[in-house]
Amino acid sequence: MLREDGEAFVDDATFLERLERIVGPEGLRAGRLGRALYRRDASFLNAEPLAVCAPATVAQAQQVVRLCREASVPFTPRGAGTGLAGGAVPVAPERAPLVVALGRLDRIIHIDPEHRRAWVQPGVPNARLSERAAPYGLRFAPDPASQIAATLGGNVATNAGGIHCLSEGVTSAHVLAVELLGADGELHLLGGDLPEQGGLDLRGLAVGSEGTFGLVTKACVRLQPLPPQTRTLLAGFPSAVAAARAVSRIVTGDTLPAALELMDREAVELVEPYARAGYPMDAEAVLLAEFEGLPAEVAHGAEAASEACTAEGATSVEIARTAEHRTKLWKGRKGVAGAIAKRAPDFYLHDVVVPRSGLADMLAGVLEIAADEELLVINVVHAGDGNLHPFLLFDREDPGVLDRVLRAGHRIVETALAAGGVLTGEHGVGIEKRDLLGDVYSEDDLAVQRAVRDAMDPSGLANPGKVLPSPQGCAEGTQRLVPEGTWV
Amino acid sequence: MLREDGEAFVDDATFLERLERIVGPEGLRAGRLGRALYRRDASFLNAEPLAVCAPATVAQAQQVVRLCREASVPFTPRGAGTGLAGGAVPVAPERAPLVVALGRLDRIIHIDPEHRRAWVQPGVPNARLSERAAPYGLRFAPDPASQIAATLGGNVATNAGGIHCLSEGVTSAHVLAVELLGADGELHLLGGDLPEQGGLDLRGLAVGSEGTFGLVTKACVRLQPLPPQTRTLLAGFPSAVAAARAVSRIVTGDTLPAALELMDREAVELVEPYARAGYPMDAEAVLLAEFEGLPAEVAHGAEAASEACTAEGATSVEIARTAEHRTKLWKGRKGVAGAIAKRAPDFYLHDVVVPRSGLADMLAGVLEIAADEELLVINVVHAGDGNLHPFLLFDREDPGVLDRVLRAGHRIVETALAAGGVLTGEHGVGIEKRDLLGDVYSEDDLAVQRAVRDAMDPSGLANPGKVLPSPQGCAEGTQRLVPEGTWV
Repeated sequence: MLREDGEAFVDDATFLERLERIVGPEGLRAGRLGRALYRRDASFLNAEPLAVCAPATVAQAQQVVRLCREASVPFTPRGAGTGLAGGAVPVAPERAPLVVALGRLDRIIHIDPEHRRAWVQPGVPNARLSERAAPYGLRFAPDPASQIAATLGGNVATNAGGIHCLSEGVTSAHVLAVELLGADGELHLLGGDLPEQGGLDLRGLAVGSEGTFGLVTKACVRLQPLPPQTRTLLAGFPSAVAAARAVSRIVTGDTLPAALELMDREAVELVEPYARAGYPMDAEAVLLAEFEGLPAEVAHGAEAASEACTAEGATSVEIARTAEHRTKLWKGRKGVAGAIAKRAPDFYLHDVVVPRSGLADMLAGVLEIAADEELLVINVVHAGDGNLHPFLLFDREDPGVLDRVLRAGHRIVETALAAGGVLTGEHGVGIEKRDLLGDVYSEDDLAVQRAVRDAMDPSGLANPGKVLPSPQGCAEGTQRLVPEGTWV
Repeated sequence: MLREDGEAFVDDATFLERLERIVGPEGLRAGRLGRALYRRDASFLNAEPLAVCAPATVAQAQQVVRLCREASVPFTPRGAGTGLAGGAVPVAPERAPLVVALGRLDRIIHIDPEHRRAWVQPGVPNARLSERAAPYGLRFAPDPASQIAATLGGNVATNAGGIHCLSEGVTSAHVLAVELLGADGELHLLGGDLPEQGGLDLRGLAVGSEGTFGLVTKACVRLQPLPPQTRTLLAGFPSAVAAARAVSRIVTGDTLPAALELMDREAVELVEPYARAGYPMDAEAVLLAEFEGLPAEVAHGAEAASEACTAEGATSVEIARTAEHRTKLWKGRKGVAGAIAKRAPDFYLHDVVVPRSGLADMLAGVLEIAADEELLVINVVHAGDGNLHPFLLFDREDPGVLDRVLRAGHRIVETALAAGGVLTGEHGVGIEKRDLLGDVYSEDDLAVQRAVRDAMDPSGLANPGKVLPSPQGCAEGTQRLVPEGTWV
């Protein structure tokens, strides 16, 4: 069949038939339920894909992309779907995209303890790599709270952060090479297993490109020695503002914690009954500060942090004395999202960053906005980085609540930007923040971003509709992303 | 005047006249001597520029670039000219480029101790920033050996390394934002003073782009706390191979040194009479290992390193007991290039990287190649990174020596690549390694690199002839870069 422009047109039925020949029936979901399951990620944006396929090998993935190219079908890469910004939601202006789920490419190809690096496939869950590296005394430092599910491919695509990225830097600092399956159907090795390959740093450019260059089919990541000792400090404060002040004091000291997290009373009340970690229930906010290193180093850091907390009015300061206690404390921190179901059927989790010095004001601002929009808010903060994650709680059955949630979210982002902050900490721009990018970049700068993206994917088939607003200030998609009654 | 294609043609005389109106007579060197002085950088490649201009303000720089654009004159940015790869050598296939020297833009705009960052102009010498940050207890971590002269703009352009980059990472890890004056004459802010701006990481792409995107007119860099304590260990070995083995043993231990340098006997013999640091004159190779941190941490690191050296047969191991002794040791290490004039009138300094485990073999290979080509070689090595800097010594008056030097250099690079290494450690690709990039990248990958470069500078006027080989496998330039008798 030929289109008007003379190119062969591959209709949906033919496309799906050819797709099935590549990935087999077990690698394809084109039915109503399969399409419904892959409408959304951990954001509440959603849209219907043409179909979902899960290649079992890189060769299959390559054939899939070549078919997409031939048929002009856009495709949306997907890891574990834990992203908060809609990066894995299949949208496109013209034709519904194919979701390419990379979960079956889940091999740890090689761990090289001598050079402290590993080659991995994109579907490996983050936590599994550290588990497998542990016998060599090594770990993969970036540890998003969703690390049991979140995949390394998704981590690379979003340049994910994590609780221990305060001292170690985010994903980009830990990725030496990315094998990219471009929308041209070719495999490109960006970077290599040594740093500084010469030429432009396309590796760094690909990290955080949110699937808009193609699929990550392989990555070489740095592994780091497990710390000889760890010490975790828990402090309770009479106000979130006091806790935020303690953060500034700790971070400007001479020992940087490996992790520094803040939770408000609402968060503590949610997780304590389940984690039984001994979080102080009378505090308005708690800080968790973890120090890693040699015994003298962690002792010094914990002592200095303890003094800083006391100086800012902490009502309790405690050191976790056992590994078990430490595990429980982190179980609590990482379990917030899971525990929220007890409070409300739905939540909208935000991801913004402010300069550390603006943390106290920003927290006050979030509380004010939530009160104003009559929403319950729960705050967990990667405090050392100034990265806030306010959970806005709601019940979708509540008439008009979606408007209030969206408005509150927008106001939170605007407040962060006004405080000298940035749009996103670690979940990327996706669809959610796409049209806000114009608040951060000039039209000129966006044009440069677009030119570079076009250079990496001239076809525009790789994860369309994400990250960059269209030059016309497109509203395309956003409306039909959250139609009434399409929650799954 | 109109060219054949109908565009206005600005001849050289008119161009220079208009240039002088922008930068004033004090900002322009168009005479024979001025042009001769800016033929080369610290490589021995050289070519004659159309002229040299040194804008005094960013506004002037912007007018200069706009004039270049209008007149289709290519331009070559220049910092202090300490690069080893010819990145600041003005070459172009058609019209000789204008050298834009950025040394007059040398203001430290703002040091922000609370957020540990500084905004700087490109002409600020690397060492000056750390000097100015010291009263706040801060420093700029990347410290190339040429740091007294080398500018931050040049550091950004080449993604420079340095002695203390073993533990802290190279320049890219310390740059939050780059203000780029594109060849379009517009200022683009890439990144920002907080990490994770959203969108593609063009900041990271610009770091190491070697002037091919335009001029760096401003940068925001991270500052780090000065270490509470420093301990430096000096060990002598009966062979370079033994020293290289000690490196592997130290680096795989539990405390990573801040710096780990290797010098061979030839290097020690050169610098000891001048530095009087107490380097062992009977050793075939010496290691310098520096530990930074809390007292217990540096003591532990130095002790472990000392044991590692002894285990690999070190003939002497000593800890620098005073700050003065430490300063002398580093003065020796950083003074190698300067001291070489005592041994030979000319040198060709290389910059290659191998995996650490291949260091001993690579050193043996360098010695063999030098012997084979009848050249004296002096080895200094950023050993922790596997980054070798062999100095090939020669006298240009010696007939045919240049061929041997170039051949030896080429063989060294090929040996490094065969050992799983990379082309360049910290000086970039420039012209020197441009035509070797095809040994590292496929033609396909080079096409992607070219597409991205074209997206960042569609005009091709920014530092042409650098980094990427032309698709036709161009030999343009290389021949006329080192014509007989053009040494300056």
